[in-house]
Amino acid sequence: MDKLEGYRGKLRHVLEKADIVIGDKILIKKRGIEIKGILMPSISREDDIIFVKLENGYNIGIRYKDLEIEKVESIIREPREIKGEPKEGEVMLISTGGTIASKVEYTTGAVRPALSVDEIIEFVPEVKDIAKITVEVLFSILSENMKPEYWSRISEKVYESLVKEYKGVVIAHGTDTMAYTSSALSFSLRRINKPILIVGSQRSSDRPSSDASLNLLSALFAAKNSDLAEVGVVMHGEPSDSYVLVHRGTKVRKMHTSRRDAFQTINGMPLMKIIFDERRIIQISNYRKRNSDVPEVYPRFDERVFLLKIFPGISEQIVYYLVDKGYKGIIVEGTGLGHSPENFIEAFKYANDNGVIVGMSSQCIFGRVNMNVYTTGRLLLRSGVLPLSDMLPETALVKLMWGLANIKDLDELRRFMLTNVSGEINDRELMSYFPRWNHGN
Amino acid sequence: MDKLEGYRGKLRHVLEKADIVIGDKILIKKRGIEIKGILMPSISREDDIIFVKLENGYNIGIRYKDLEIEKVESIIREPREIKGEPKEGEVMLISTGGTIASKVEYTTGAVRPALSVDEIIEFVPEVKDIAKITVEVLFSILSENMKPEYWSRISEKVYESLVKEYKGVVIAHGTDTMAYTSSALSFSLRRINKPILIVGSQRSSDRPSSDASLNLLSALFAAKNSDLAEVGVVMHGEPSDSYVLVHRGTKVRKMHTSRRDAFQTINGMPLMKIIFDERRIIQISNYRKRNSDVPEVYPRFDERVFLLKIFPGISEQIVYYLVDKGYKGIIVEGTGLGHSPENFIEAFKYANDNGVIVGMSSQCIFGRVNMNVYTTGRLLLRSGVLPLSDMLPETALVKLMWGLANIKDLDELRRFMLTNVSGEINDRELMSYFPRWNHGN
Repeated sequence: MDKLEGYRGKLRHVLEKADIVIGDKILIKKRGIEIKGILMPSISREDDIIFVKLENGYNIGIRYKDLEIEKVESIIREPREIKGEPKEGEVMLISTGGTIASKVEYTTGAVRPALSVDEIIEFVPEVKDIAKITVEVLFSILSENMKPEYWSRISEKVYESLVKEYKGVVIAHGTDTMAYTSSALSFSLRRINKPILIVGSQRSSDRPSSDASLNLLSALFAAKNSDLAEVGVVMHGEPSDSYVLVHRGTKVRKMHTSRRDAFQTINGMPLMKIIFDERRIIQISNYRKRNSDVPEVYPRFDERVFLLKIFPGISEQIVYYLVDKGYKGIIVEGTGLGHSPENFIEAFKYANDNGVIVGMSSQCIFGRVNMNVYTTGRLLLRSGVLPLSDMLPETALVKLMWGLANIKDLDELRRFMLTNVSGEINDRELMSYFPRWNHGN
Repeated sequence: MDKLEGYRGKLRHVLEKADIVIGDKILIKKRGIEIKGILMPSISREDDIIFVKLENGYNIGIRYKDLEIEKVESIIREPREIKGEPKEGEVMLISTGGTIASKVEYTTGAVRPALSVDEIIEFVPEVKDIAKITVEVLFSILSENMKPEYWSRISEKVYESLVKEYKGVVIAHGTDTMAYTSSALSFSLRRINKPILIVGSQRSSDRPSSDASLNLLSALFAAKNSDLAEVGVVMHGEPSDSYVLVHRGTKVRKMHTSRRDAFQTINGMPLMKIIFDERRIIQISNYRKRNSDVPEVYPRFDERVFLLKIFPGISEQIVYYLVDKGYKGIIVEGTGLGHSPENFIEAFKYANDNGVIVGMSSQCIFGRVNMNVYTTGRLLLRSGVLPLSDMLPETALVKLMWGLANIKDLDELRRFMLTNVSGEINDRELMSYFPRWNHGN
């Protein structure tokens, strides 16, 4: 890897001469102002811009003109290797990548060399007081690159931990697709006997405002001590560090690009609240309890499913394309109670006649599909479109990917899609599960 | 139209003999229980199920066995015709269809013959005390069938009203795609001089819980009396009838399938609150004020835009398909801060190289795209993907449809997509605009 990636010409020469590489802490003096930060790779087409990550986490570009650069500190760490077999602990910590494991990425600006969980522990020494942990770096990807085949690998790895003596399992994961993975594990792992908690952070652990530490500590604490036996997502409950929530894996969604409390339960309440400072867990909803069942794993997923969001002007040709391309399922994010333009009715019938499962969810996110109220809905039902109740579109997608790989008979698969398996369908009234909106005074 | 649509065999014979047709109020006696309701079309493959809409608005199917049916009342009305030219009024009321205009649809179960707005007034007599209105039934469609070409027709019709003496314009619209239409009018109409308020209802006006009456009255009141000169959406602020909100047309989203307060402002606050009982309007946010500008209309939209939601396992082939099919724009609903799997980077570059505009929004809905934080984002930017800030994906789609039809030069179009035109991009800090979630005690 080029240690001065993106830098060219005179500026590169200056940096080389000062023995500065990407990731070093540098001091820039320009017209009497001093700026301290970490040298980042250049993303400019211009040769004379120097990119620096400030201490508050923001990146800036400064033009190299009337400017002095000094090296303050070489802070790239040698990648630590875990030597020998990790000691067996109380909690299994599986790292898959993401911001929670991105210290090195931040300092070098590179994607690939993510931090090992071992190194997180170095940053969060309290971990040692919470639980003896066993660490495994399964892979190290940014979660936007997550794929069904990785869900299979995580499922198998988690399963190994379920049948061993660990009290619980924690999975470090990027937040972008965390809710998809929590759904995937909710379907691939059955007869779950202990907590399986997915944890991430919205700000990396090298930033003062990072949520990595509290989220990780809370997840480890709950994995060891809570009576949960489901897949949960563990993230901040509020912007402050007051408490952390455990959300049901099939009912959670990333609802904000950057807030620390971005993850929220939809159409229901979180499972539990963790007040870590007091080492206290408060139950909020009913959930499956820790037990001595023998867990099962069905790790396969079929990628041939498309998530199709409906909008005015959309052409039904996309359905014919998907069917003819060999897709086996389509999850529709319909409008309102589960509708699509009338020109889709024939197209969905074509899909259905060709053995492609079509399920209807709603782009409203909150509430429940009800295709019996209006004529369009009734016609869609007659075309074989499955009404997916209050399942989130993302959860429905993952469920169908799992169903296609594990259930051969199409009628059985249809029934499976309409049946609650892992808390993804809520039969109770949903109207009250709606957040309070700010409408001023 | 078959007046006993869907009924066959013996049951049809019984209904015919009793002179009952769809839409009649009937009384069913079965094992000592009496059920009153309106006969609906049959949607069953079985011959012996009778479908009835109960007084609470719900539909049930009852098996025809040990059952008596009586006709209580023939309630189909003759369609009323508006005779002669409507009297010129203070507010122009344009009907496009939807639940707010669906009384007849409900009683007959049919889609096509929607209620004229004139008939709504019959149900909501207070309208006469609020404003002299002029009514025009532009078309009568369920809003899931809304298309860009209809946006053009609505734009032209609204424009006519802007340049006439009306104090404001109200548009009755189905709720499924109401927020898309409000965005469309926000871009097609410029130099707006008076209120343009889109109104709908979540429950039709024949149901006791209907929100149609209060929403319509509030919209007419605000159209006549408020100092707004923007496109707004007028819907319930709470489940109760306490107040109605006016949301900015480019910032509003249907966030619940069925609640009366389903419409909410995202990444901001509503424009105003209307307490109709007190005939009072409370300003919440800043907005463009009533003025004497000469309005302009640019009614054309280009449908060749696709809204692509990213998910784990999605194949980048969809991008090549769209480009090769002649699409001119793709709005991506990326993950997190605006990401897609790395295999999309090349595909988006291909789109960009072929003159297809690619814009990035976030499926988180709340927050703002920021593609400078992680490597994936920076690589996507280099592929020509436009970071659409805090624009809603649906608004971005409509904006690009409008831009393609009205701006020839691609660089100018790119700048247009990144520039706030009608309140769709919020430059202020967004972190605080997040609803309060229910986490129990």
